[in-house]
Amino acid sequence: MNAAYTLGVDFGTNSVRAVVVDCRDGRTVGTRVFNYPSGHQGVLLDPRDPHLARQNPADYLEGLRASVTGALEEAARDKAFSAGRVIGIGVDTTGSTPIPVDVNNRALALDPKWSAVLAAQAWLWKDHTAAEEAAAITAAAAAHAPEYLAPIGGTYSSEWFWSKIWHCLKTAPEVFDAAYSWVELADYIPAVLAGVVHLGDLRRSVCAAGHKALYSDTWGGLPSKAFLARLDPKLAALRDRLFDEAYAADRPAGRLCAEWAAALGLRSGIAIAMGGFDAHYGAVGAGVRTGTLVKIIGTSTCDCAVAPVSGGIQNVPGICGIVNGSIMPGYYGIEAGQSAVGDLLKWWVERVCEGDDALHEALTARASRLRPGESGLMALDWNNGNRTVLVDPRLTGLIVGQTLHTSRADVYRALIEATAFGARAIIERLTACGVPVDRVVCCGGIAEKNPLFMQIYADVIGHPMIIAGSPQTPALGAAASAAVAAGEAAGGHASFAGAQAAMVRDGAQQFVPDAGARRVYDELYGIYRELHDTFGGVAGSTAELGTVMKRLLAIRERVMALQA
Amino acid sequence: MNAAYTLGVDFGTNSVRAVVVDCRDGRTVGTRVFNYPSGHQGVLLDPRDPHLARQNPADYLEGLRASVTGALEEAARDKAFSAGRVIGIGVDTTGSTPIPVDVNNRALALDPKWSAVLAAQAWLWKDHTAAEEAAAITAAAAAHAPEYLAPIGGTYSSEWFWSKIWHCLKTAPEVFDAAYSWVELADYIPAVLAGVVHLGDLRRSVCAAGHKALYSDTWGGLPSKAFLARLDPKLAALRDRLFDEAYAADRPAGRLCAEWAAALGLRSGIAIAMGGFDAHYGAVGAGVRTGTLVKIIGTSTCDCAVAPVSGGIQNVPGICGIVNGSIMPGYYGIEAGQSAVGDLLKWWVERVCEGDDALHEALTARASRLRPGESGLMALDWNNGNRTVLVDPRLTGLIVGQTLHTSRADVYRALIEATAFGARAIIERLTACGVPVDRVVCCGGIAEKNPLFMQIYADVIGHPMIIAGSPQTPALGAAASAAVAAGEAAGGHASFAGAQAAMVRDGAQQFVPDAGARRVYDELYGIYRELHDTFGGVAGSTAELGTVMKRLLAIRERVMALQA
Repeated sequence: MNAAYTLGVDFGTNSVRAVVVDCRDGRTVGTRVFNYPSGHQGVLLDPRDPHLARQNPADYLEGLRASVTGALEEAARDKAFSAGRVIGIGVDTTGSTPIPVDVNNRALALDPKWSAVLAAQAWLWKDHTAAEEAAAITAAAAAHAPEYLAPIGGTYSSEWFWSKIWHCLKTAPEVFDAAYSWVELADYIPAVLAGVVHLGDLRRSVCAAGHKALYSDTWGGLPSKAFLARLDPKLAALRDRLFDEAYAADRPAGRLCAEWAAALGLRSGIAIAMGGFDAHYGAVGAGVRTGTLVKIIGTSTCDCAVAPVSGGIQNVPGICGIVNGSIMPGYYGIEAGQSAVGDLLKWWVERVCEGDDALHEALTARASRLRPGESGLMALDWNNGNRTVLVDPRLTGLIVGQTLHTSRADVYRALIEATAFGARAIIERLTACGVPVDRVVCCGGIAEKNPLFMQIYADVIGHPMIIAGSPQTPALGAAASAAVAAGEAAGGHASFAGAQAAMVRDGAQQFVPDAGARRVYDELYGIYRELHDTFGGVAGSTAELGTVMKRLLAIRERVMALQA
Repeated sequence: MNAAYTLGVDFGTNSVRAVVVDCRDGRTVGTRVFNYPSGHQGVLLDPRDPHLARQNPADYLEGLRASVTGALEEAARDKAFSAGRVIGIGVDTTGSTPIPVDVNNRALALDPKWSAVLAAQAWLWKDHTAAEEAAAITAAAAAHAPEYLAPIGGTYSSEWFWSKIWHCLKTAPEVFDAAYSWVELADYIPAVLAGVVHLGDLRRSVCAAGHKALYSDTWGGLPSKAFLARLDPKLAALRDRLFDEAYAADRPAGRLCAEWAAALGLRSGIAIAMGGFDAHYGAVGAGVRTGTLVKIIGTSTCDCAVAPVSGGIQNVPGICGIVNGSIMPGYYGIEAGQSAVGDLLKWWVERVCEGDDALHEALTARASRLRPGESGLMALDWNNGNRTVLVDPRLTGLIVGQTLHTSRADVYRALIEATAFGARAIIERLTACGVPVDRVVCCGGIAEKNPLFMQIYADVIGHPMIIAGSPQTPALGAAASAAVAAGEAAGGHASFAGAQAAMVRDGAQQFVPDAGARRVYDELYGIYRELHDTFGGVAGSTAELGTVMKRLLAIRERVMALQA
């Protein structure tokens, strides 16, 4: 078979990365990173509001062009490669990152009239301005549509689609009124490539819709107009200008339009895969399949698993999102996570020890010399709340066991261990609810760079920690998706399983559990669960201590309000 | 009345301080500090054993001479003063600091044969080499003489008299055999001044005997020979060479001998008061009386209170020591404490933040700007165990409420607050058991130098924190004791109450509770008690979490033993 290639384009928080991948073996033949030029490292900030994080949509388009042409340029050094052999493009992005658009799917911010208005830009995933709206949506759903909350674990987030749009309506009504509709970045880029100029032609991915916009077949798509009208009549009206159906990646989002084909130097008409979130395509690129858990470990951790739709799936309490087709067609996509992992160590090093990267290295070296149990410490990994399995963003941290000899390295290791115990709690919940986990593949910055972390995870969890073969699993997954969208006849693949078999491989490095360490960690994990269940307020444990963290927060908030 | 003066001589860990005080008004007319020349800042160390801490008895004698003559020299600048007007000497010391002596009350280490032998020196209070012996004494008493444990809170310490002597017997039998007997430093110095050369003439204070040597009228003095024989027959034999009775400070220890009168330039025959521990004479010098709690706040905290013997006293569970006459004659001396106070902050700054005194100052400044409840944190003050009211040296620390924004200053303040909550728990236990506390006087380094600490204590405890009028309350208390020993006719005082009324006054500075802060701290204290009772294993709370700290320690010890 002749060589065929696909492009994977990964829109991150600070930059966009394009890779050119050989469909036969997953080999990367070209890559290019483009840093967003606007704002601070690509993020538009508001000095008056630390919760605000927006992005300039023009950066996305410039980045798309620059990264793809750059990657193709590099690929061209390979004699076997030619741009004519590229058969498809896949796109993954951050999310929920909704963009206000006009009736022609043009981002509002590209219009000079709106280009300087923050509310008219893309609302980046980590924008937290809509906390009040999120709480109001959660309350309204709890009262009137509890079914909406079940698949998202009980709490609608300020990071998500409806919270942000409602916040725009309340704080920048002129932008809300000027926008014909709103499109997730993951859907926007494929539509741009496909030349979609009528919103009715835009195919939305179930990935963004199901995980962030309360979309489900169970209740016929997006939330009902009646429910949205409880929030604001204008949101109910907007529903008519959004979408009725969202799609898995079993069909293309469209075909490359002539204009972008020319701009990128590619054949027009090649397949554009459905867009997806970076974590989901990252799971594909790391080899997710039934029985395989993919852990993307960075500042936070995102856990992705799949379960065949044909097998059905029981409810998994405390798992944030279970969406049909969200990771791969034919499977329920299951997403879990831990709110602070790298961030927990970053907190310790930067905020408490007031150190830098060099201190991270020094503490890692010192912590590596400690054996399991030696610090005498036990921590809960909740400084940023607990996403899975307690689904409670208002939980806080705890450390117990300090003596006058306890060192900063002791605590550093205890915090790593705490995240490992939290990871084990998630796996135990999955397997208890019929989602088997017999293989764990790790990717992300920490997985690649921190052997101490990975060895502790292996020892605590009791499975080998397999490091993903690619350091760019989201872009590789997007490229695999493009190979499926292009199809076997074009030199791609007939299915995700086929694409993964050919294009995805495990890394050479594995971290294997040590029997002695496992025994100690099994015992320590028992203590972790006692603290976890007590302070997490799990039914059956001491009711009083289960509210300690909330009561401390309530006192703090009252004190702060008195000052304000 | 003509002016009369007494000397107070305070033997600390690193130095000895003598003060000359006017008996009429407590005014200091002369003072001199002498730093012990031997070892590291006066402490003999063993590089192979971090638990060892001894002192050279020659330093005591040289320090006695130098500090007293120096203080007298300074006093002589006052026209009204003359050495002939000095009517008595009082002595306070660290303890338990037992010294092996020969039959003439001469410290063994003064003999060139033993001067280089560590076991023959004074065994400084903070020597922790005898941990095994302490545990064995506790176990033997629990099994065969539980009455011995009741007044000391259930655990015999490695810092105390019998543990140290037994450790000497086991590890340096030649020293044990060469010693005719053992004398506490607090008894040794007055005996030296009185020229005691027959041990039978040496009057031991009930302060050291009752708090450290298991002495009580209830069982007829020291522990029985039968009990001591269970430990070692040689300890039973030693009992015959110790003492049958110990005394409160209602009579002198003796009269100044001619030799020391000449050496110091004083009249021979003036009164030598009974020696006492620094904390106890510190309480006297801070104005302890019925209803007044004296807190000596430094690296750890020692709380002293008194209750009239005539009123009887009920058992106070969890209070380490209740000894008839140990602080003042006619009163039960009641001693409580917190194992780590300044040490807790020192741990945070030096061990975790790896900073110095300048960082202490910076964190104090930052913590001062936080309001009660603002950090959202709650800590237990148990990094060095809990002395009162749980009497459990194996408890460890706990911090809860951390977020990713929690700073080192937040924790610094939370640790101060934790010690304040612990202080409140002690006061509540005292008042619940019939020891009234309606006045709190604070002394020690932290009380004098740290207004933030003191304001938090006032706000948490709900009493004004009165700072003692003298920065050298132990020496002042010893001088007051000397005035009582000299008697009214000599220009001294008829009673401790009279001496205190004349010689002791409160400092000008008081820290008054703030009503708003009190309300917040009342609520936070409720949470502290929940954590305290749960993790302290107080009956009625969750049994499981009550053992978490011990189980973590047990795992740690097992892991460490495996390596060894």
